[in-house]
Amino acid sequence: MPELRHDPIQRRWVIISTERGRRPDDFLIDNEMPPGTFCPSCEGNESKASPEIYAIRPNGSSADGPGWQVRVVPNKFPVLKVEGELDRHAHGIYDAMNGVGAHEVIIETTRHELHLAETPLAQLELVLRTYRERLRDLLNDRRLKYILIFKNYGLAAGAALAHPHSQLIATPVTPKTVALELQSAMEHFNVKERCLFCDIIRNELDQGVRVVATNDHFVVLTPYASRFPFEIFLAPRRHRHDFAAITEEEIRSLAEIFRDSMRRIKIALKDPPYNFVIHTIPNRKSTNRATYWQTIEHDFHWHIEILPRLTRMAGFEWGSGFYINPTAPEEAAQFLRDIEL
Amino acid sequence: MPELRHDPIQRRWVIISTERGRRPDDFLIDNEMPPGTFCPSCEGNESKASPEIYAIRPNGSSADGPGWQVRVVPNKFPVLKVEGELDRHAHGIYDAMNGVGAHEVIIETTRHELHLAETPLAQLELVLRTYRERLRDLLNDRRLKYILIFKNYGLAAGAALAHPHSQLIATPVTPKTVALELQSAMEHFNVKERCLFCDIIRNELDQGVRVVATNDHFVVLTPYASRFPFEIFLAPRRHRHDFAAITEEEIRSLAEIFRDSMRRIKIALKDPPYNFVIHTIPNRKSTNRATYWQTIEHDFHWHIEILPRLTRMAGFEWGSGFYINPTAPEEAAQFLRDIEL
Repeated sequence: MPELRHDPIQRRWVIISTERGRRPDDFLIDNEMPPGTFCPSCEGNESKASPEIYAIRPNGSSADGPGWQVRVVPNKFPVLKVEGELDRHAHGIYDAMNGVGAHEVIIETTRHELHLAETPLAQLELVLRTYRERLRDLLNDRRLKYILIFKNYGLAAGAALAHPHSQLIATPVTPKTVALELQSAMEHFNVKERCLFCDIIRNELDQGVRVVATNDHFVVLTPYASRFPFEIFLAPRRHRHDFAAITEEEIRSLAEIFRDSMRRIKIALKDPPYNFVIHTIPNRKSTNRATYWQTIEHDFHWHIEILPRLTRMAGFEWGSGFYINPTAPEEAAQFLRDIEL
Repeated sequence: MPELRHDPIQRRWVIISTERGRRPDDFLIDNEMPPGTFCPSCEGNESKASPEIYAIRPNGSSADGPGWQVRVVPNKFPVLKVEGELDRHAHGIYDAMNGVGAHEVIIETTRHELHLAETPLAQLELVLRTYRERLRDLLNDRRLKYILIFKNYGLAAGAALAHPHSQLIATPVTPKTVALELQSAMEHFNVKERCLFCDIIRNELDQGVRVVATNDHFVVLTPYASRFPFEIFLAPRRHRHDFAAITEEEIRSLAEIFRDSMRRIKIALKDPPYNFVIHTIPNRKSTNRATYWQTIEHDFHWHIEILPRLTRMAGFEWGSGFYINPTAPEEAAQFLRDIEL
């Protein structure tokens, strides 16, 4: 059973997950994706993968067989596990809890070689709908405080499989990064009665220099204080706090601008490794602090962060929490805007 | 001039440093250290490096010539620059300031191929004394809030040069990571009138399972909530808040246990890439909040964090602030303890 541990100095939670290799020899570093041998995510190989949690099967095909368009399976090496009690406890002077949660793999297509930037819009809409449906389902589990959807593409971005996939990890504490965003947004709202994210989006649309693209429902920016070169912030133009409540119209609009953004990055940076993460609200059902949830729909704003992995974290970054970004966000935005699609 | 920018959502400062390359082609990723051609850090090549800021020259040799034992030069591509005014200002809805600070390279030896784990103790003591002297000198600059000493070893840990070197970056704000440690330590002290770090060290010495080594003055632990496999925490056993006040006796003791730790890591993990950082107190002279400084000597405790770079940060870690550590710290400590030196 993996374990969550809290560091009283940095005040952060760590997952101790000893099943993923732990001997020194397990860490020999290699920068190549493993050669394309057998792929358990390809259509026809379902029996070699874990039983599916969810799938889109328009022709009524059977679970764990071919005929799917998007398929969700448990991660074979889960960071957190669905079974078990949370068991929050003190461990001497420290704090701990069991590694209860969920870790799922969203197989985005049957096509092994398909890049997100080349995915047909109808297929990308299915993927986004799958995100929404998995969120809605998992939000019923009151042990889960937060559900983070993310993608790792390329070995340097932490991908272990070549087949197009994203992942979902549900955690029994609200992640530090999200908690800080919620706190910032709440304090901003308390003073101004405005959403911090709405203020930023309006400012950026007025200024224009960091805008990469817009459409009816969404805006794509390079953040003013981007951590990474060519970092992208994608958010609804209007105030929306909950990804699980995304409408069909918004999904169509999001698929369009999301693929557009991925194309710009792929062309500009020659198919770089990247991560993306979706930040939405925590699970309302997981806490009794009802007063808090009365405000969150006004002060938080869901968004997607797309992070090309072009720079390395080194001692200074680890030791300080600073990031060194060698590209001005205004220049990154200009470059991405100017890409011919 | 590089620029510091503050992100109002994550509440972190970012350095926009456009001089380090910024076109997409500048980011093509390579995992090999560049082949050993001309080395400006080797003895005899001083004229090809920047003029020295500090050097240990026991034979009275001239600055910027051979005859040194340890040499400190400005970084040729500084992240922050010594010249200029801080100029804190608002930029629309955002906050900014100039990238004033310092970025120095500490050349640890004349011997190009020498690993820290093989460095003679007398030489390592010179390096540690150099750290202390550079701290003492820079602490006179009231613009500098913090001075972070760190080392990057190996390309995956962010090293750009093969010649043994560490670095120092002085920043005009207290880094987020350090500020959080200071806050945690202060809040602990406010309640308990004890140092948080002293409490942890005592607990670990009592328990023993995460202790790697001890000597007269220092203890080496794997932290209870280690972020990384084989992460090491090295600290004075007795309460010491200020690295700049380290005594000669402590330097001798530190050199011994520090080299010992690096040897354990080098042998256990087959010469891995690593970072280390020294966390000491901020610059007392840089602020007028005198009341704060009356307590810091009681509540903070300097330490060194040694971080072998064996795992990759991926979407989940970036999006959540969680770290996934696949090795229990107790097993890491056991493994490192059992290494035959």
